[in-house]
Amino acid sequence: MAKFYGIGTGPGDSDLMTVKGANLLKKMSVLYTPEAKKASKSLALSIVEPFLNPELEIKQRHFPMTNDWEEKMISWQTIAKEISADVRSGQDVAFITLGDPMVYSTYSYLLDLLDDDIETETVPGIASFISMASQVQLPLCIDEEKFAVIPATVSAEEIKNGILQNDTVVLMKVANHLPKVLPILREANLLEQTILISHASQAKEVRQMTIKNLKETDKLSYFSTMIVYKNRQF
Amino acid sequence: MAKFYGIGTGPGDSDLMTVKGANLLKKMSVLYTPEAKKASKSLALSIVEPFLNPELEIKQRHFPMTNDWEEKMISWQTIAKEISADVRSGQDVAFITLGDPMVYSTYSYLLDLLDDDIETETVPGIASFISMASQVQLPLCIDEEKFAVIPATVSAEEIKNGILQNDTVVLMKVANHLPKVLPILREANLLEQTILISHASQAKEVRQMTIKNLKETDKLSYFSTMIVYKNRQF
Repeated sequence: MAKFYGIGTGPGDSDLMTVKGANLLKKMSVLYTPEAKKASKSLALSIVEPFLNPELEIKQRHFPMTNDWEEKMISWQTIAKEISADVRSGQDVAFITLGDPMVYSTYSYLLDLLDDDIETETVPGIASFISMASQVQLPLCIDEEKFAVIPATVSAEEIKNGILQNDTVVLMKVANHLPKVLPILREANLLEQTILISHASQAKEVRQMTIKNLKETDKLSYFSTMIVYKNRQF
Repeated sequence: MAKFYGIGTGPGDSDLMTVKGANLLKKMSVLYTPEAKKASKSLALSIVEPFLNPELEIKQRHFPMTNDWEEKMISWQTIAKEISADVRSGQDVAFITLGDPMVYSTYSYLLDLLDDDIETETVPGIASFISMASQVQLPLCIDEEKFAVIPATVSAEEIKNGILQNDTVVLMKVANHLPKVLPILREANLLEQTILISHASQAKEVRQMTIKNLKETDKLSYFSTMIVYKNRQF
Protein backbone atom coordinates (compact mmCIF):
# COMPACT_ATOMS: atom_id res chain seq x y z
CA MET A 1 0.00 0.00 0.00
CA ALA A 2 1.22 3.48 -0.81
CA LYS A 3 2.44 5.55 2.11
CA PHE A 4 3.59 9.00 3.15
CA TYR A 5 7.09 9.20 4.60
CA GLY A 6 8.53 12.11 6.57
CA ILE A 7 12.29 11.75 6.37
CA GLY A 8 14.94 13.61 8.38
CA THR A 9 17.92 14.60 6.25
CA GLY A 10 20.33 15.22 9.13
CA PRO A 11 22.27 18.47 9.49
CA GLY A 12 23.91 18.88 6.09
CA ASP A 13 26.38 16.14 5.11
CA SER A 14 24.45 13.70 2.86
CA ASP A 15 26.20 10.76 4.52
CA LEU A 16 24.66 11.68 7.86
CA MET A 17 21.27 10.53 6.56
CA THR A 18 20.13 7.18 7.88
CA VAL A 19 20.48 4.11 5.67
CA LYS A 20 16.70 3.77 5.95
CA GLY A 21 16.03 7.31 4.77
CA ALA A 22 18.45 6.95 1.86
CA ASN A 23 16.96 3.60 0.76
CA LEU A 24 13.39 4.88 1.02
CA LEU A 25 14.18 7.94 -1.08
CA LYS A 26 15.52 5.69 -3.86
CA LYS A 27 12.08 4.13 -4.32
CA MET A 28 9.78 7.11 -3.87
CA SER A 29 7.47 8.30 -6.64
CA VAL A 30 7.01 11.86 -5.42
CA LEU A 31 9.11 14.12 -3.20
CA TYR A 32 7.65 17.25 -1.62
CA THR A 33 10.08 19.87 -0.45
CA PRO A 34 9.84 23.51 0.57
CA GLU A 35 10.45 25.86 -2.32
CA ALA A 36 13.96 27.32 -2.31
CA LYS A 37 14.49 31.02 -1.84
CA LYS A 38 15.91 33.23 -4.62
CA ALA A 39 16.19 30.46 -7.21
CA SER A 40 18.90 28.67 -5.18
CA LYS A 41 18.51 25.00 -4.44
CA SER A 42 17.02 24.21 -1.02
CA LEU A 43 19.50 22.79 1.49
CA ALA A 44 17.31 19.77 2.28
CA LEU A 45 17.05 18.94 -1.42
CA SER A 46 20.80 19.19 -1.97
CA ILE A 47 21.40 16.82 0.99
CA VAL A 48 19.20 14.05 -0.43
CA GLU A 49 20.26 14.50 -4.07
CA PRO A 50 22.70 11.53 -4.11
CA PHE A 51 19.81 9.21 -3.16
CA LEU A 52 17.15 10.29 -5.68
CA ASN A 53 16.09 8.12 -8.60
CA PRO A 54 15.84 9.74 -12.05
CA GLU A 55 12.09 9.07 -12.34
CA LEU A 56 11.26 10.85 -9.10
CA GLU A 57 8.81 13.72 -9.40
CA ILE A 58 9.95 16.63 -7.24
CA LYS A 59 7.19 18.97 -6.13
CA GLN A 60 8.57 22.14 -4.61
CA ARG A 61 5.84 23.91 -2.70
CA HIS A 62 5.69 27.28 -1.01
CA PHE A 63 5.65 27.07 2.81
CA PRO A 64 5.22 30.70 3.89
CA MET A 65 7.63 31.87 6.63
CA THR A 66 5.22 34.23 8.32
CA ASN A 67 3.81 34.81 11.77
CA ASP A 68 0.33 34.92 10.25
CA TRP A 69 -0.96 31.58 11.48
CA GLU A 70 -3.99 31.57 9.20
CA GLU A 71 -1.93 32.21 6.08
CA LYS A 72 0.40 29.35 7.07
CA MET A 73 -2.46 26.94 7.73
CA ILE A 74 -4.16 27.65 4.41
CA SER A 75 -0.92 26.93 2.51
CA TRP A 76 -0.23 23.76 4.48
CA GLN A 77 -3.79 22.51 4.10
CA THR A 78 -3.53 22.89 0.33
CA ILE A 79 -0.25 20.94 0.29
CA ALA A 80 -1.65 18.29 2.66
CA LYS A 81 -4.65 17.76 0.35
CA GLU A 82 -2.33 17.35 -2.63
CA ILE A 83 -0.13 14.86 -0.75
CA SER A 84 -3.16 12.89 0.44
CA ALA A 85 -4.44 12.67 -3.15
CA ASP A 86 -1.04 11.49 -4.41
CA VAL A 87 -0.83 8.74 -1.81
CA ARG A 88 -4.45 7.69 -2.42
CA SER A 89 -3.63 7.33 -6.12
CA GLY A 90 -1.02 4.72 -5.18
CA GLN A 91 2.18 6.75 -5.11
CA ASP A 92 4.76 6.60 -2.34
CA VAL A 93 5.33 10.17 -1.25
CA ALA A 94 8.19 11.60 0.82
CA PHE A 95 8.61 14.92 2.57
CA ILE A 96 12.12 15.87 3.67
CA THR A 97 12.97 17.94 6.67
CA LEU A 98 16.36 19.24 7.90
CA GLY A 99 17.84 17.53 10.94
CA ASP A 100 15.25 15.41 12.75
CA PRO A 101 11.52 15.64 11.93
CA MET A 102 10.53 15.73 15.63
CA VAL A 103 12.90 18.53 16.65
CA TYR A 104 11.78 22.08 15.75
CA SER A 105 10.28 21.15 12.41
CA THR A 106 7.05 22.29 10.79
CA TYR A 107 6.69 18.71 9.54
CA SER A 108 4.43 17.76 12.46
CA TYR A 109 1.89 20.42 11.45
CA LEU A 110 1.80 18.98 7.94
CA LEU A 111 1.42 15.47 9.34
CA ASP A 112 -1.63 16.55 11.36
CA LEU A 113 -3.29 17.96 8.25
CA LEU A 114 -3.08 14.81 6.11
CA ASP A 115 -6.34 12.95 5.55
CA ASP A 116 -6.97 10.33 8.25
CA ASP A 117 -6.90 7.37 5.86
CA ILE A 118 -3.33 8.08 4.73
CA GLU A 119 -0.72 5.74 6.19
CA THR A 120 2.30 7.65 7.47
CA GLU A 121 5.78 6.82 8.71
CA THR A 122 8.41 9.14 10.14
CA VAL A 123 12.11 8.36 9.75
CA PRO A 124 14.38 10.08 12.28
CA GLY A 125 17.46 12.10 11.40
CA ILE A 126 20.57 13.40 13.13
CA ALA A 127 19.55 16.66 14.81
CA SER A 128 22.06 19.50 14.34
CA PHE A 129 23.00 19.66 18.04
CA ILE A 130 23.62 15.89 18.14
CA SER A 131 25.97 16.26 15.18
CA MET A 132 27.72 19.25 16.77
CA ALA A 133 28.57 17.28 19.91
CA SER A 134 30.21 14.52 17.84
CA GLN A 135 32.12 17.05 15.76
CA VAL A 136 33.70 18.61 18.84
CA GLN A 137 33.79 15.23 20.62
CA LEU A 138 32.32 16.63 23.83
CA PRO A 139 29.43 14.57 25.26
CA LEU A 140 26.05 16.22 25.76
CA CYS A 141 25.54 14.07 28.84
CA ILE A 142 27.25 11.32 30.79
CA ASP A 143 26.31 9.37 33.91
CA GLU A 144 23.62 11.30 35.85
CA GLU A 145 23.84 14.55 33.93
CA LYS A 146 20.81 16.41 32.57
CA PHE A 147 20.67 18.36 29.35
CA ALA A 148 18.13 20.72 27.86
CA VAL A 149 17.42 22.19 24.46
CA ILE A 150 16.17 25.77 24.63
CA PRO A 151 15.37 28.19 21.81
CA ALA A 152 16.99 31.58 22.52
CA THR A 153 13.65 33.18 21.68
CA VAL A 154 12.32 32.46 25.20
CA SER A 155 12.74 34.86 28.13
CA ALA A 156 16.07 35.60 29.84
CA GLU A 157 14.58 34.11 33.00
CA GLU A 158 13.87 30.79 31.27
CA ILE A 159 17.37 30.65 29.77
CA LYS A 160 18.91 31.40 33.18
CA ASN A 161 16.84 28.68 34.84
CA GLY A 162 17.70 26.20 32.12
CA ILE A 163 21.40 26.81 32.61
CA LEU A 164 21.07 26.65 36.38
CA GLN A 165 19.23 23.34 36.37
CA ASN A 166 21.07 21.41 33.69
CA ASP A 167 24.63 20.27 33.08
CA THR A 168 24.61 20.96 29.35
CA VAL A 169 22.34 23.38 27.52
CA VAL A 170 21.83 23.63 23.78
CA LEU A 171 20.74 27.15 22.81
CA MET A 172 19.05 27.18 19.42
CA LYS A 173 18.46 30.21 17.18
CA VAL A 174 20.91 32.45 19.06
CA ALA A 175 21.61 34.73 16.07
CA ASN A 176 19.20 37.53 16.94
CA HIS A 177 19.41 37.11 20.69
CA LEU A 178 23.02 37.82 21.66
CA PRO A 179 22.06 40.87 23.80
CA LYS A 180 19.90 38.51 25.89
CA VAL A 181 22.14 35.41 25.89
CA LEU A 182 25.66 36.82 26.32
CA PRO A 183 25.11 38.67 29.65
CA ILE A 184 23.64 35.50 31.16
CA LEU A 185 26.61 33.38 30.12
CA ARG A 186 29.09 36.10 31.15
CA GLU A 187 27.57 36.40 34.61
CA ALA A 188 27.62 32.61 35.02
CA ASN A 189 31.27 32.62 33.92
CA LEU A 190 30.50 30.17 31.13
CA LEU A 191 31.73 32.04 28.03
CA GLU A 192 34.81 29.82 27.80
CA GLN A 193 32.75 26.67 28.20
CA THR A 194 30.36 27.53 25.38
CA ILE A 195 30.87 26.52 21.78
CA LEU A 196 29.20 28.17 18.81
CA ILE A 197 28.57 26.43 15.50
CA SER A 198 26.87 27.76 12.40
CA HIS A 199 25.89 25.46 9.53
CA ALA A 200 26.98 22.29 11.35
CA SER A 201 28.43 19.58 9.04
CA GLN A 202 27.98 21.76 5.94
CA ALA A 203 30.77 23.11 3.70
CA LYS A 204 30.34 26.60 5.13
CA GLU A 205 30.46 25.49 8.76
CA VAL A 206 31.89 28.01 11.24
CA ARG A 207 32.98 26.72 14.63
CA GLN A 208 34.15 28.61 17.71
CA MET A 209 35.33 26.64 20.75
CA THR A 210 34.87 29.63 23.04
CA ILE A 211 32.67 32.70 22.80
CA LYS A 212 34.73 34.91 25.09
CA ASN A 213 35.35 37.40 22.25
CA LEU A 214 31.80 37.41 20.95
CA LYS A 215 30.02 40.77 21.20
CA GLU A 216 26.34 41.58 21.61
CA THR A 217 26.46 43.41 18.28
CA ASP A 218 28.12 40.60 16.29
CA LYS A 219 26.15 39.28 13.35
CA LEU A 220 25.63 35.52 13.24
CA SER A 221 24.04 33.27 10.65
CA TYR A 222 20.43 32.29 11.34
CA PHE A 223 21.57 28.65 11.60
CA SER A 224 23.73 29.24 14.70
CA THR A 225 23.61 27.11 17.81
CA MET A 226 25.48 27.28 21.10
CA ILE A 227 26.22 24.41 23.44
CA VAL A 228 26.92 25.43 27.02
CA TYR A 229 29.05 22.70 28.61
CA LYS A 230 29.09 23.40 32.35
CA ASN A 231 31.01 20.24 33.26
CA ARG A 232 33.57 19.84 30.47
CA GLN A 233 37.20 20.91 30.29
CA PHE A 234 38.33 21.80 26.76
CA MET B 1 46.65 7.93 7.81
CA ALA B 2 45.01 5.36 10.05
CA LYS B 3 42.36 6.66 12.39
CA PHE B 4 40.11 5.72 15.30
CA TYR B 5 36.37 6.06 14.69
CA GLY B 6 33.67 6.08 17.34
CA ILE B 7 30.45 5.20 15.56
CA GLY B 8 26.89 5.47 16.87
CA THR B 9 24.77 2.47 15.89
CA GLY B 10 21.39 4.10 16.51
CA PRO B 11 18.74 2.48 18.72
CA GLY B 12 18.44 -1.03 17.27
CA ASP B 13 17.24 -1.21 13.66
CA SER B 14 20.38 -1.60 11.48
CA ASP B 15 18.89 0.75 8.88
CA LEU B 16 18.81 3.58 11.41
CA MET B 17 22.61 3.77 11.23
CA THR B 18 23.94 6.70 9.23
CA VAL B 19 25.17 6.10 5.68
CA LYS B 20 28.55 7.39 6.89
CA GLY B 21 28.75 4.94 9.79
CA ALA B 22 27.73 2.02 7.56
CA ASN B 23 30.28 2.93 4.85
CA LEU B 24 33.08 3.43 7.36
CA LEU B 25 32.43 0.06 8.98
CA LYS B 26 32.77 -1.64 5.59
CA LYS B 27 36.41 -0.54 5.34
CA MET B 28 37.60 -0.93 8.92
CA SER B 29 40.42 -3.32 9.84
CA VAL B 30 39.54 -3.77 13.50
CA LEU B 31 36.30 -3.36 15.43
CA TYR B 32 36.28 -3.06 19.21
CA THR B 33 33.03 -3.83 20.97
CA PRO B 34 32.02 -4.53 24.55
CA GLU B 35 31.96 -8.22 25.34
CA ALA B 36 28.47 -9.68 25.28
CA LYS B 37 26.95 -11.10 28.44
CA LYS B 38 26.14 -14.80 28.85
CA ALA B 39 27.52 -15.86 25.44
CA SER B 40 24.76 -13.95 23.61
CA LYS B 41 25.72 -11.57 20.86
CA SER B 42 25.99 -7.92 21.91
CA LEU B 43 23.18 -5.70 20.65
CA ALA B 44 25.57 -3.14 19.15
CA LEU B 45 27.37 -5.88 17.24
CA SER B 46 24.15 -7.35 15.87
CA ILE B 47 23.08 -3.88 14.65
CA VAL B 48 26.24 -3.34 12.59
CA GLU B 49 26.52 -6.93 11.32
CA PRO B 50 25.05 -6.18 7.83
CA PHE B 51 27.84 -3.66 7.25
CA LEU B 52 30.90 -5.68 8.29
CA ASN B 53 33.45 -6.97 5.80
CA PRO B 54 34.56 -10.61 6.09
CA GLU B 55 38.21 -9.67 6.80
CA LEU B 56 37.32 -7.48 9.77
CA GLU B 57 38.96 -8.45 13.04
CA ILE B 58 36.44 -8.17 15.87
CA LYS B 59 37.95 -7.64 19.30
CA GLN B 60 35.39 -8.07 22.03
CA ARG B 61 36.72 -6.58 25.25
CA HIS B 62 35.43 -6.61 28.78
CA PHE B 63 34.08 -3.23 29.96
CA PRO B 64 33.23 -3.83 33.62
CA MET B 65 29.77 -2.57 34.68
CA THR B 66 30.76 -1.61 38.19
CA ASN B 67 30.60 1.43 40.44
CA ASP B 68 34.26 0.88 41.28
CA TRP B 69 35.76 3.77 39.32
CA GLU B 70 39.32 2.53 39.64
CA GLU B 71 38.50 -0.94 38.33
CA LYS B 72 36.72 0.65 35.35
CA MET B 73 39.58 2.97 34.56
CA ILE B 74 42.17 0.20 34.67
CA SER B 75 40.15 -1.87 32.17
CA TRP B 76 39.55 1.09 29.86
CA GLN B 77 43.19 2.17 30.00
CA THR B 78 44.25 -1.30 28.92
CA ILE B 79 41.79 -1.24 26.00
CA ALA B 80 42.79 2.33 25.07
CA LYS B 81 46.47 1.28 24.94
CA GLU B 82 45.59 -1.63 22.67
CA ILE B 83 43.51 0.57 20.36
CA SER B 84 46.25 3.21 20.22
CA ALA B 85 48.79 0.54 19.25
CA ASP B 86 46.49 -0.84 16.54
CA VAL B 87 45.98 2.62 15.00
CA ARG B 88 49.71 3.41 15.23
CA SER B 89 50.43 0.17 13.32
CA GLY B 90 48.37 1.57 10.43
CA GLN B 91 45.00 -0.05 11.03
CA ASP B 92 41.67 1.81 10.89
CA VAL B 93 39.89 0.98 14.13
CA ALA B 94 36.24 1.45 15.02
CA PHE B 95 34.42 1.36 18.33
CA ILE B 96 30.64 1.05 18.22
CA THR B 97 28.26 2.49 20.74
CA LEU B 98 24.45 2.15 21.02
CA GLY B 99 22.41 5.20 20.06
CA ASP B 100 24.57 8.31 19.83
CA PRO B 101 28.17 8.40 21.13
CA MET B 102 27.66 11.78 22.85
CA VAL B 103 24.47 10.83 24.74
CA TYR B 104 24.98 8.73 27.90
CA SER B 105 27.78 6.62 26.49
CA THR B 106 31.02 5.48 28.10
CA TYR B 107 32.65 6.10 24.73
CA SER B 108 33.83 9.58 25.78
CA TYR B 109 35.85 8.11 28.65
CA LEU B 110 37.57 5.76 26.24
CA LEU B 111 38.24 8.65 23.83
CA ASP B 112 39.97 10.61 26.60
CA LEU B 113 42.27 7.68 27.36
CA LEU B 114 43.63 7.20 23.83
CA ASP B 115 47.20 8.35 23.23
CA ASP B 116 47.39 12.00 22.16
CA ASP B 117 48.92 11.27 18.75
CA ILE B 118 45.96 9.12 17.63
CA GLU B 119 43.63 10.81 15.17
CA THR B 120 39.99 10.33 16.13
CA GLU B 121 36.60 10.97 14.56
CA THR B 122 33.15 10.53 16.07
CA VAL B 123 30.17 9.66 13.88
CA PRO B 124 26.79 10.53 15.41
CA GLY B 125 23.87 8.12 15.69
CA ILE B 126 20.13 8.29 16.26
CA ALA B 127 19.64 8.51 20.03
CA SER B 128 16.90 6.25 21.37
CA PHE B 129 14.63 9.12 22.45
CA ILE B 130 14.94 10.77 19.02
CA SER B 131 13.83 7.49 17.43
CA MET B 132 10.96 7.10 19.90
CA ALA B 133 9.51 10.49 18.98
CA SER B 134 9.46 9.56 15.29
CA GLN B 135 7.92 6.18 16.04
CA VAL B 136 4.99 7.74 17.86
CA GLN B 137 5.05 10.78 15.52
CA LEU B 138 4.86 13.26 18.39
CA PRO B 139 7.38 16.11 18.21
CA LEU B 140 9.84 16.59 21.07
CA CYS B 141 9.68 20.34 20.47
CA ILE B 142 8.06 22.85 18.15
CA ASP B 143 8.22 26.63 17.91
CA GLU B 144 9.44 28.07 21.24
CA GLU B 145 9.19 24.89 23.29
CA LYS B 146 11.97 23.61 25.54
CA PHE B 147 12.82 20.00 26.15
CA ALA B 148 15.09 18.24 28.60
CA VAL B 149 16.65 14.82 28.95
CA ILE B 150 16.86 13.65 32.55
CA PRO B 151 18.06 10.32 33.96
CA ALA B 152 15.54 9.02 36.51
CA THR B 153 18.47 8.35 38.84
CA VAL B 154 18.52 12.02 39.93
CA SER B 155 16.49 13.36 42.88
CA ALA B 156 12.69 13.70 42.87
CA GLU B 157 13.20 17.46 43.26
CA GLU B 158 15.26 17.64 40.05
CA ILE B 159 12.72 15.58 38.11
CA LYS B 160 9.90 17.81 39.37
CA ASN B 161 11.76 20.97 38.37
CA GLY B 162 12.62 19.55 34.97
CA ILE B 163 8.96 18.80 34.29
CA LEU B 164 7.90 22.20 35.58
CA GLN B 165 10.33 24.14 33.42
CA ASN B 166 10.13 22.25 30.13
CA ASP B 167 7.43 21.38 27.62
CA THR B 168 8.67 17.89 26.92
CA VAL B 169 10.82 15.75 29.20
CA VAL B 170 12.61 12.54 28.31
CA LEU B 171 13.11 10.37 31.41
CA MET B 172 15.88 7.84 30.88
CA LYS B 173 16.52 4.68 32.92
CA VAL B 174 13.11 4.72 34.60
CA ALA B 175 13.03 0.95 35.25
CA ASN B 176 14.22 1.00 38.87
CA HIS B 177 12.73 4.37 39.74
CA LEU B 178 8.96 4.02 39.33
CA PRO B 179 8.30 4.71 43.06
CA LYS B 180 10.01 8.08 42.58
CA VAL B 181 8.75 8.96 39.08
CA LEU B 182 5.09 7.86 39.13
CA PRO B 183 3.91 10.00 42.09
CA ILE B 184 5.42 13.11 40.44
CA LEU B 185 3.64 12.46 37.14
CA ARG B 186 0.39 11.53 38.92
CA GLU B 187 0.40 14.72 40.94
CA ALA B 188 1.09 16.79 37.81
CA ASN B 189 -1.78 14.97 36.07
CA LEU B 190 0.55 13.86 33.27
CA LEU B 191 0.14 10.05 33.34
CA GLU B 192 -2.01 10.13 30.21
CA GLN B 193 0.45 12.37 28.40
CA THR B 194 3.42 10.13 29.06
CA ILE B 195 4.54 7.37 26.73
CA LEU B 196 6.76 4.46 27.74
CA ILE B 197 8.96 2.56 25.32
CA SER B 198 11.32 -0.31 26.01
CA HIS B 199 13.83 -1.51 23.40
CA ALA B 200 12.91 1.23 20.88
CA SER B 201 13.11 0.11 17.21
CA GLN B 202 14.13 -3.43 18.18
CA ALA B 203 12.16 -6.61 17.52
CA LYS B 204 11.18 -6.88 21.19
CA GLU B 205 9.99 -3.27 21.44
CA VAL B 206 7.20 -2.61 23.96
CA ARG B 207 5.26 0.63 23.64
CA GLN B 208 2.62 2.16 25.92
CA MET B 209 0.89 5.37 24.82
CA THR B 210 -0.25 6.11 28.37
CA ILE B 211 1.10 5.02 31.75
CA LYS B 212 -2.14 5.51 33.68
CA ASN B 213 -2.23 1.81 34.61
CA LEU B 214 1.44 1.51 35.47
CA LYS B 215 2.14 0.64 39.11
CA GLU B 216 5.10 1.48 41.32
CA THR B 217 5.79 -2.25 41.70
CA ASP B 218 5.70 -3.08 37.97
CA LYS B 219 8.88 -4.55 36.53
CA LEU B 220 10.30 -2.81 33.47
CA SER B 221 13.20 -3.65 31.20
CA TYR B 222 16.43 -1.77 31.94
CA PHE B 223 16.16 -0.16 28.49
CA SER B 224 12.94 1.74 29.26
CA THR B 225 12.40 5.41 28.57
CA MET B 226 9.45 7.73 29.18
CA ILE B 227 8.60 10.85 27.22
CA VAL B 228 6.40 13.31 29.10
CA TYR B 229 4.55 15.40 26.51
CA LYS B 230 2.95 18.29 28.40
CA ASN B 231 1.64 20.05 25.28
CA ARG B 232 0.49 17.21 23.03
CA GLN B 233 -2.96 15.73 22.52
CA PHE B 234 -2.88 12.04 21.63
